[in-house]
Amino acid sequence: MPFPLPPGSTIGILGGGQLGRMLALAAARLGLDVVILTPDAGSPASKVSRETIVAAYDDPDALARLAALADVVTYEFENVPAATVAALNGLGAPTAPGPLALAVAQDRVEEKTFLNGAHAPTVAFAAVGSVSDIAAALPRIGLPALLKTRREGYDGKGQAWIHDAAEAGAAFAAVGAAPSILEARAAFTRELSIIAARGRDGQTAFYPLSENVHEGGILRTTFAPAAVTPALQAEAERIAGEVLGRLDYVGVMGIELFDLGDGTLLVNEIAPRVHNTGHWTQDGCEVDQFEQHIRAVAGWPLGDTTPAVSVEMTNLLGDEILGWADLARDPAARLHLYGKGEPRPGRKMGHVNRVRRFRG
Amino acid sequence: MPFPLPPGSTIGILGGGQLGRMLALAAARLGLDVVILTPDAGSPASKVSRETIVAAYDDPDALARLAALADVVTYEFENVPAATVAALNGLGAPTAPGPLALAVAQDRVEEKTFLNGAHAPTVAFAAVGSVSDIAAALPRIGLPALLKTRREGYDGKGQAWIHDAAEAGAAFAAVGAAPSILEARAAFTRELSIIAARGRDGQTAFYPLSENVHEGGILRTTFAPAAVTPALQAEAERIAGEVLGRLDYVGVMGIELFDLGDGTLLVNEIAPRVHNTGHWTQDGCEVDQFEQHIRAVAGWPLGDTTPAVSVEMTNLLGDEILGWADLARDPAARLHLYGKGEPRPGRKMGHVNRVRRFRG
Repeated sequence: MPFPLPPGSTIGILGGGQLGRMLALAAARLGLDVVILTPDAGSPASKVSRETIVAAYDDPDALARLAALADVVTYEFENVPAATVAALNGLGAPTAPGPLALAVAQDRVEEKTFLNGAHAPTVAFAAVGSVSDIAAALPRIGLPALLKTRREGYDGKGQAWIHDAAEAGAAFAAVGAAPSILEARAAFTRELSIIAARGRDGQTAFYPLSENVHEGGILRTTFAPAAVTPALQAEAERIAGEVLGRLDYVGVMGIELFDLGDGTLLVNEIAPRVHNTGHWTQDGCEVDQFEQHIRAVAGWPLGDTTPAVSVEMTNLLGDEILGWADLARDPAARLHLYGKGEPRPGRKMGHVNRVRRFRG
Repeated sequence: MPFPLPPGSTIGILGGGQLGRMLALAAARLGLDVVILTPDAGSPASKVSRETIVAAYDDPDALARLAALADVVTYEFENVPAATVAALNGLGAPTAPGPLALAVAQDRVEEKTFLNGAHAPTVAFAAVGSVSDIAAALPRIGLPALLKTRREGYDGKGQAWIHDAAEAGAAFAAVGAAPSILEARAAFTRELSIIAARGRDGQTAFYPLSENVHEGGILRTTFAPAAVTPALQAEAERIAGEVLGRLDYVGVMGIELFDLGDGTLLVNEIAPRVHNTGHWTQDGCEVDQFEQHIRAVAGWPLGDTTPAVSVEMTNLLGDEILGWADLARDPAARLHLYGKGEPRPGRKMGHVNRVRRFRG
């Protein structure tokens, strides 16, 4: 199937969570069908998709079926097994983003090494395979330092702070003695992120920076556009452009940044997918990050990222979704609920975008 | 299930076309599931819904299954058989809008009789069961007059103009000698419509009037908000409020109006459902007509109808959808495609909303 994919084509999505769901809704608006592959029955995305294959991500029959149905396959999470992508490509199903972006994003040491090579500054870091590696690196990294597993882990899981060299052993045990990365603490004034997109023709598009507030390692609130100088926005776009270009990237990427307050931005991490800090675009921009990602992977031209309003996005975690009736009454609140079942503590059940018009 | 229906509840929709599809997309955003009943496999709505029952609207097993799955049932078209609604209600599934609105909307004589009783002016009309009825009515109705079947017929089908009394027989034959209505021609300056909503608590909400241009009996373009005086908007809202209240209506209604240019509005017809002339609200208002309808039938509070921008909505008919790639490149154009197969002449394949910001 040549790109751009015409309306009526089928987008395959690995993963059935809220990001897959919002991608599916965006695809539908463009007249594109969606097939989901997920190990979970009754997933949020499957309820709004043409078809769902419930199987493990390495199930050969499932991958063959997905490859037969889908004109292109994308992901809602970055920990897609490399073998899955290779199998899909071998079956003739193109994938976007490509294997390189996934490989870089799946390993925090590879990621920071790549970023520094792409003129995207990060905190100082060291690869850790043992407690003695931590001891050897601490003089350069400084205290406190953050130990994270190289792979997996999100929303603050698989991490341990080291405030004193004597805590190295306990920290390594806390991350399961897995291959890890030791990171210097960034002396940042605030956390920003930029949602960036790159099309099949190399065209790029950048949303305005957002400012993000985390609580307990989980995103709580995003304010966008962030109050930044044009120079800081330009620096974020420079970094994003380098990263996207060197990965020959196709799709939307979320790039988390530390603002050091002196004009310097450090990249915290990159997510080769639509991103929680980009949910504000649903009610802030003509083309949101979900439609943008679908446009990119389908080979369509990228859409307009100019914000029409300012937005405060708040995640609804766990029981907070029980406040839906009050939120539904608030004319400034735009509700986005994910169709998940049980509201377990910390589970992302939905989000609310509160819109403020710019002064005319 | 008591109203308001909480997230995770299921909305049943009779009909699987583009209106059902856009209703399903709106329901998903609110965390509500959708089950479609339609006689057509592979319908536009079924591709974005949790489940589809492919069966005739009077299939007892299908209605039993729908009633078991859905917490409330609504429609995307007004010609739902009364027996279907009665069966669903008998099975314990509430329906919205209710049977009275459907009965009124399904018969053009009943409709105009109801409207006049509700202080909603219409053109002069007469019930027609024979050619002699036409002859008897013409002196009062005047020439030219429009003969329409009382039931069914849309987009200009089932209609015949009578320019001379001698054409009565041919016109009656042209509408299949079916029970009909003879209508006076309205000396209107333009066609307007108002999208109105009423919640389960009797709360009402009105969108700004839109101006509509038809070609060959099919809606071509909607401009909204229409350039009207506050008095004309108030008169439209007065009419809509009367109609909604007297029907104890729950949901969104489209009301087509003739603007006589002297402050008078005549009701052309009412559609007890979301309406093609309300598609502009998707990109013009915080809460569009689809979410508004879902809110109403689910017992949620109605949403804000204030327009943020002005919109020109153009239907993409038949082959016009082949211009999708150019439209995708136009930053002012917001595409909404329906996932239909073959682009037959006159078939509504999608629409495009062109947005213009108000001056600040």
